[in-house]
Amino acid sequence: MTRLPRLILGLVTLPFLASTLLASPALADDKVTTFTLPNGLNAIVIEDHRTPVVTHMVWYRAGAADEKRGKSGIAHFLEHLMFKGTPTVPTGEFSRVVEANGGYDNAFTTEDQTAYFQRIASDRLDLVMRMEADRMRNLTLSESDVTTERQVILEERNLRTDSSPEALFSEQLDAAQYLNHPYGTPTIGWRQEVEGLTRQDALDWYGRFYAPNNATLIVAGDVNPADVEKMAKEFYGPLQPSEGIGPRIRPQEPQQLAERRLTFVDPRIGQDYVTRSYLAPQRKTGNQAEAAALTVLAELLGGGPTSVLNKALVMDQKRAVSAGAHYDGAALDPTTFSLYAVPVEGVRLADLEGALDKVLADFLDKGVDPAAFARLKTRMKADLIYRQDNAGDLAEDYGSAVTSGLTVADVQAWPAALQAVTEDDVLAAAKQVLDRRQSVTGFAMAKAEEPAK
Amino acid sequence: MTRLPRLILGLVTLPFLASTLLASPALADDKVTTFTLPNGLNAIVIEDHRTPVVTHMVWYRAGAADEKRGKSGIAHFLEHLMFKGTPTVPTGEFSRVVEANGGYDNAFTTEDQTAYFQRIASDRLDLVMRMEADRMRNLTLSESDVTTERQVILEERNLRTDSSPEALFSEQLDAAQYLNHPYGTPTIGWRQEVEGLTRQDALDWYGRFYAPNNATLIVAGDVNPADVEKMAKEFYGPLQPSEGIGPRIRPQEPQQLAERRLTFVDPRIGQDYVTRSYLAPQRKTGNQAEAAALTVLAELLGGGPTSVLNKALVMDQKRAVSAGAHYDGAALDPTTFSLYAVPVEGVRLADLEGALDKVLADFLDKGVDPAAFARLKTRMKADLIYRQDNAGDLAEDYGSAVTSGLTVADVQAWPAALQAVTEDDVLAAAKQVLDRRQSVTGFAMAKAEEPAK
Repeated sequence: MTRLPRLILGLVTLPFLASTLLASPALADDKVTTFTLPNGLNAIVIEDHRTPVVTHMVWYRAGAADEKRGKSGIAHFLEHLMFKGTPTVPTGEFSRVVEANGGYDNAFTTEDQTAYFQRIASDRLDLVMRMEADRMRNLTLSESDVTTERQVILEERNLRTDSSPEALFSEQLDAAQYLNHPYGTPTIGWRQEVEGLTRQDALDWYGRFYAPNNATLIVAGDVNPADVEKMAKEFYGPLQPSEGIGPRIRPQEPQQLAERRLTFVDPRIGQDYVTRSYLAPQRKTGNQAEAAALTVLAELLGGGPTSVLNKALVMDQKRAVSAGAHYDGAALDPTTFSLYAVPVEGVRLADLEGALDKVLADFLDKGVDPAAFARLKTRMKADLIYRQDNAGDLAEDYGSAVTSGLTVADVQAWPAALQAVTEDDVLAAAKQVLDRRQSVTGFAMAKAEEPAK
Repeated sequence: MTRLPRLILGLVTLPFLASTLLASPALADDKVTTFTLPNGLNAIVIEDHRTPVVTHMVWYRAGAADEKRGKSGIAHFLEHLMFKGTPTVPTGEFSRVVEANGGYDNAFTTEDQTAYFQRIASDRLDLVMRMEADRMRNLTLSESDVTTERQVILEERNLRTDSSPEALFSEQLDAAQYLNHPYGTPTIGWRQEVEGLTRQDALDWYGRFYAPNNATLIVAGDVNPADVEKMAKEFYGPLQPSEGIGPRIRPQEPQQLAERRLTFVDPRIGQDYVTRSYLAPQRKTGNQAEAAALTVLAELLGGGPTSVLNKALVMDQKRAVSAGAHYDGAALDPTTFSLYAVPVEGVRLADLEGALDKVLADFLDKGVDPAAFARLKTRMKADLIYRQDNAGDLAEDYGSAVTSGLTVADVQAWPAALQAVTEDDVLAAAKQVLDRRQSVTGFAMAKAEEPAK
């Protein structure tokens, strides 16, 4: 029921993820149309008539980083509670109806947004839109709904985080990366705070953020834009906007002056690894050049077996079994650029880290290999075309962007921004971002490498 | 105008402070009386007739750790603004009147409290009490008061923090020590947040926390308790309580699982040093035994030239020019137990840290030296008697305690709790607190010890 990207796609699973996260094209710009209802609901329609299927998504500009201190986990909690009932749709009915009509539905929470989606035959769009609009304003929550779901979420936390040393470590690393910004707080919430979340907390969150003027509707697939607008007017049009929607201004970072290092020892760790994350700028509306360069940098350093880190650490030096880099600039506030390496048997993490830093220093010194850069550009073009071919992926790119400070125009400008990146841009971005003072280095080990001093 | 203990008495100045912070006795319990007014104001009177002087203090249960996320610095900002005017006492008049009457006044803000005090001839007590009561509820703040004072505070931050590499590093260390609790936020506030504090923020803070039912009055010196109560009734009695006072429940720490290490390089650092802090329990009402053992442990490890760390690192090994330990358990929430060492010329911080950890390991292994323990107990007794001799110090002990979750009875039980500590208690407390997973280690260096890897 939940996706927690920073947890799941973030440092946790980095050692195990192929790094092909280039994302976000929109070559078929003419297939994308938008409209806005008088109550503030923005909508994006992506036409794709090849199969008679539609993806219907509602994205709320409300994520874990919008939570009050001490109430961590409420964004995700509310996501769960949205599957409880309304006066016209009883608890559990939503997903049952979608399934009975051959569809699939789910939801996820990130630091910047909460999204709900269904994929269903395109002639059933009205069915899911009616129910989604209904629960935007009419959710009813009993005390027992909340009590039950709190237990479910605590179990989810047990399963996803507390049972996973990598996830636990990731929480500690994120908390060390951010000195002040709420991105340092886990999306699922700190256990002791989740335990204390109440029905009133949920109602406050729902009342404030779940409203047409805080949401973006995305309909992607075998639909006609005019029909979608008519339908949206019917179902979403009557909903009242919320008065609690202001600019999303969050506590920002002070200057980060001292590099941080964390060591985590847990016998459950199956494979030792070293991670490094640096505070990094996000994609900014109208100005995505730096984020584009960082996106290319991540690919160049860590994307695939011939990337700089893999070539050096895995192939040439045989110190690592894998290595990689990760950057996703779609965030409302400054995000991270991260690296990892997994040692071969017998190589100490400190030595692997030294080797990794040496590779970075050489890269900064010698610059970008033109042949590798040309190959990457070609691959990126192919990736963009591939991703653009999937209306569901496009819907996700648009939804993520417009709920993290970007616009439809930014999404459409992104492929060109990536293609415009030069070797010099990559090097300049690398020099800017690879600042140890703004970094966190993590050693995850099944047992201490050396006796505690 | 401000004391910021965590900043000033904390890690920042540790390398330069003699460690004799035993604090908090009350041998002359019969000289201490209390009363409570119907509007909720608690008062503590400490009689001392040896000199015709009185210390008048008001302590508010409102400190930096009670601030909302994004509003750091507002507690301290309000402290400054309390020296602006009321309808009957114009701006600047307060301190001018105190001074004109031969007195002295000041104020300070910590993470747990804000306090205002005056020392003046005892026959002028009514003068200062009248003015202090007046500004508890009648403060007026113009937009220009706020604008001016914001500049003053930013200058103060420049001077105390941004110009001081030790203070800057201390901020980064505190932020790394606490993953969730607001003790990780500096009392003076992050610069970018102080810049954004408004008149409304100040009025909200004032309206919520500045009220008789959120304050403790302490009068210490040449006074008669009955007279003080009569006077308090006259001046503080008519003030309305605030309805915004609830239990002080703050975001707590998740389990700390990974030790953190920070390196800070700044050419302005005059003397390199290494610090280590561990999350540590605070003094708890009715249960101060563990905190008492930690207090003794800090003295045993770092108090004076014959302490364990000094004897080993300074005298025997000649690796350090000084070393010490610090613990102050008067805090509402879990605090820190910290160590530091300053190397002699030519000793690397990593080696000094290794030596320090070796000393700790030996201490845990071999236990407390009985002769050293006996000497310490004798010295502690003397310190307690000395401190008890000063009504101003006692006033501070009581004020600090009762605004951080303790009671008058706890303060009076503290000397006995310290005296009851056994060698086994100290060792048990040491084993509990010296857990690297809950620790932060800091290296402060004028230049990097070795070329960046």
